[in-house]
Amino acid sequence: MTESDLPVVDFHPYRWGDPDRPAELSGAVHEALAAFGVRAPACGPVEPADAALPDIVLTDGARAALEVAVGAEYVRYDREARVGHTRGWSTPDLLRLRSGDASDAPDAVALPGSHEEVVALLGACAEHHVAVVPYSGGTSVVGGLAPARDGFHGVVALDMGRLDAVVAVDEISRTATFQAGMRGVTAEKALRERNLTLGHFPQSYEGASIGGYAAARSAGQSSAGYGRFDDMVVGLTLATPRGTVELGTAPKSAAGPDLRQLVLGSEGALGVITSVTVRVRPAPAVRVFETWRFETFEAGAEALRRLVQDGPVPTVLRLSDEAETSINLADPSALNGGGAGGCLAVTGYEGAAAEVESRRAGATAVLSAAGGAPEGTDGGEAWRTGRFRAPYYRDPLLEAGVLIETLETVTFWSNLHALRAAVTQALTTALTDQGTPPLVLCHISHVYETGASLYFTVACAQAEDPFGQWRTAKTAANDAIRAAGAAITHHHGVGTDHRDTYRQEIGPLAVETLRAAKQALDPTGILNPGVLIAPERPEAGA
Amino acid sequence: MTESDLPVVDFHPYRWGDPDRPAELSGAVHEALAAFGVRAPACGPVEPADAALPDIVLTDGARAALEVAVGAEYVRYDREARVGHTRGWSTPDLLRLRSGDASDAPDAVALPGSHEEVVALLGACAEHHVAVVPYSGGTSVVGGLAPARDGFHGVVALDMGRLDAVVAVDEISRTATFQAGMRGVTAEKALRERNLTLGHFPQSYEGASIGGYAAARSAGQSSAGYGRFDDMVVGLTLATPRGTVELGTAPKSAAGPDLRQLVLGSEGALGVITSVTVRVRPAPAVRVFETWRFETFEAGAEALRRLVQDGPVPTVLRLSDEAETSINLADPSALNGGGAGGCLAVTGYEGAAAEVESRRAGATAVLSAAGGAPEGTDGGEAWRTGRFRAPYYRDPLLEAGVLIETLETVTFWSNLHALRAAVTQALTTALTDQGTPPLVLCHISHVYETGASLYFTVACAQAEDPFGQWRTAKTAANDAIRAAGAAITHHHGVGTDHRDTYRQEIGPLAVETLRAAKQALDPTGILNPGVLIAPERPEAGA
Repeated sequence: MTESDLPVVDFHPYRWGDPDRPAELSGAVHEALAAFGVRAPACGPVEPADAALPDIVLTDGARAALEVAVGAEYVRYDREARVGHTRGWSTPDLLRLRSGDASDAPDAVALPGSHEEVVALLGACAEHHVAVVPYSGGTSVVGGLAPARDGFHGVVALDMGRLDAVVAVDEISRTATFQAGMRGVTAEKALRERNLTLGHFPQSYEGASIGGYAAARSAGQSSAGYGRFDDMVVGLTLATPRGTVELGTAPKSAAGPDLRQLVLGSEGALGVITSVTVRVRPAPAVRVFETWRFETFEAGAEALRRLVQDGPVPTVLRLSDEAETSINLADPSALNGGGAGGCLAVTGYEGAAAEVESRRAGATAVLSAAGGAPEGTDGGEAWRTGRFRAPYYRDPLLEAGVLIETLETVTFWSNLHALRAAVTQALTTALTDQGTPPLVLCHISHVYETGASLYFTVACAQAEDPFGQWRTAKTAANDAIRAAGAAITHHHGVGTDHRDTYRQEIGPLAVETLRAAKQALDPTGILNPGVLIAPERPEAGA
Repeated sequence: MTESDLPVVDFHPYRWGDPDRPAELSGAVHEALAAFGVRAPACGPVEPADAALPDIVLTDGARAALEVAVGAEYVRYDREARVGHTRGWSTPDLLRLRSGDASDAPDAVALPGSHEEVVALLGACAEHHVAVVPYSGGTSVVGGLAPARDGFHGVVALDMGRLDAVVAVDEISRTATFQAGMRGVTAEKALRERNLTLGHFPQSYEGASIGGYAAARSAGQSSAGYGRFDDMVVGLTLATPRGTVELGTAPKSAAGPDLRQLVLGSEGALGVITSVTVRVRPAPAVRVFETWRFETFEAGAEALRRLVQDGPVPTVLRLSDEAETSINLADPSALNGGGAGGCLAVTGYEGAAAEVESRRAGATAVLSAAGGAPEGTDGGEAWRTGRFRAPYYRDPLLEAGVLIETLETVTFWSNLHALRAAVTQALTTALTDQGTPPLVLCHISHVYETGASLYFTVACAQAEDPFGQWRTAKTAANDAIRAAGAAITHHHGVGTDHRDTYRQEIGPLAVETLRAAKQALDPTGILNPGVLIAPERPEAGA
């Protein structure tokens, strides 16, 4: 199965991924968990149909205005729509909804059919002081879909699902323009029909949308070869309560600040992205994925650094640490997928046949010289075909009584090992102190000439209050990341979960600058309030 | 002579480049000009010592505050300092100063010695309502150094010359941090001592500074290989009247908008960049520059597009049109440097020996298949060693009675030929209508996967009012660029000259957003007022 064969998926409200292909734990895993003292929670999850929804607080005037903006048939107030647009898919989000808490549900779900209708909807919400959360795949794992509602007369989820057209493909300039609600899978399918590819495959690929990639500054698993999503974007259309901003006159220019980069990563707080123009590339004729084994994480990291700094650079390049290598994340039921110890790296090459051959030969020489042992293509292919599958296992693990969550960060190469040690230590201490010593796994997920990202997976037995248990651990990890001088997120985004650490990271004057930009575009502050920046105004002098 | 052998140069107030190596026109060129009816102006340029300086309007209080901020010995009020910091080096700038008009001279030149002194100076200027123009190499060609002074009690040029230290080099992460006043040549020399390179060689290389590269979003002649300057920047420190902003926690992240990209290209209007951290690379072991000839510009452009889209990508890649090919810009005295007609492309390769060999072989195959005829390395080497020299000829040409200026733009590949035709037509019509039919030369100076820049050189006989003559032509070119949907500048910047077209390009709501960001960082509007965005406030609804 290749990326473009995958179906577009609407996730179950509290399960990650395709509801038709749920993951199951093997008997051996259940036995192992029992041996570790992990016990399933006393009661199972509350069904979505029984979740406690807040009363709808929209005024009659607001309802009427929404219905005028997008058409009455495209404003939904039913339970299914509201629960289906409640928060995202972080472990805390899942825990809350599983406990029957749907208090963050929007009052209504609106589905505009055009950019103009989005602008009209935002105008209506500004007039009636209704908060707006832009929504597509809903795959946020950082609380990006739970805006503050204090002081607003309700919250509307602006579902971009109807804005899913291919607007234009320029085969000469190799650009494609998509409406923002188009899912990544659909965009990729449309491009493959023209023998093109976007090459953007984040782990949320089965659900996420083009607009979400842009708003959350997404990075895909093939970023070494195809770049991050923010590298791909050449143009954007932004709807705001005050009208439209169109950016991207040229590929690059010296015409002032690059305002595209102000919108990318703005997470719905500055406006609603309604279309995106991206750079596309020829669909790869050939692809080869393989694995390499290094004695230590440090040796493997050094090999990755050499490749990304001096080339040739594979299309995919990642490295698991010893702990992660000992567990095959793509199939945790196999428990001992890692085999012979050490650290496993995945290298992937995509492109024209001759180019792939020469690039692979060059990288092979570098990896061998750096002490890597080649392990052939079986492990690489298994990773490639299973790569969107790992998070599916979170749901049966949660049900079995495991607390499992991921977090990620990024720093410069010279700081990488200190950062890994600090975050591992913080998570281990915070959870051990609660009586639930964790397993902390880590891999390098994305590489740059000057640094790399670290992606952590944390698992332990659930405590009585798993929500509070994780909050304590997450706070410790955030503090460790900040103390190490690294970024609070590499590709998950800020949302509400990272907002306070983000404020420390960029400082009060930068926060005020963002707030000023928001004020210019969204004077009444209705756009995803509390996401990215705190809703209260005074910030200076902090 | 290589890039790192060049001296750092302080330009003569109205001559481009190293005053010790002025360019001269040959007798043949003078004869040719005479044959075309070009006549030298009746009177020569006014000497800087005789230029009309405005009275100093700084209050005693402001003077005292400036002197407290940076030390009395580092505030200059003398004629030489003031004339030496008057405007930049566009042709209109030169024409005005040559005519004895130094009305844009700053009242004082302040030379802070640290980031903290810059912050203190901005605080003093805000308090006394004195406008500030950040100044390093002074090589702006878009009016970026002539802020509006209406409503201010004087203008201070903030000369960054004393902030010229290497702050840090991280050889593991391959980054280097420079104070912003460090000239490009000095930075390159410092890196070469460690066998590293920045690889940034704009035509202003002999004079420009690291901070200027960042503030003006510079692009160097080797951008195909080393990237634009905005690609190189991983961190920035910004001094503002309200304090400090430090950006660049990590190489890349999803922690909100990329605020580095808001500062890059801000041209001193949002703050004063005091240090910059850049990605560096190994100094090249080998370099090969060569020329190729194509029958037509269209054929050559197609070859460049194939290379940059499908690779392998040379380090330097440019293409002159038929008119420019017929004149050797690096040595106009040779008049017929182009030889056999058609269009000349320059390809350059830098790197490790084996890598250069394989990349060059691959590119050679692509260029040959695209109809290019190789012409060996003589022309390429001549271009490489002469490449900073071309603008030196502007001064003797101006003195001989030629009006000569350059401008540049950028668009997507599918729009490139329409853009070239439209700008050429606009310039030709506007100058022919004034009785001075021009020569319009063009080359592709920078290439991207999705598009390319066009760099125009325009020459004609000077009219009685060359300043007004050029303004008419420039306005026609700006309008043509906007009508063609291209960017008003690729690497020269916005300054004051492009401000109105820039406003049309990004639209009123984006201008308001920039203005809001400025207001947050610079509430009294002292920072380079009128540069980038117009000083007046109301913009919406335009």
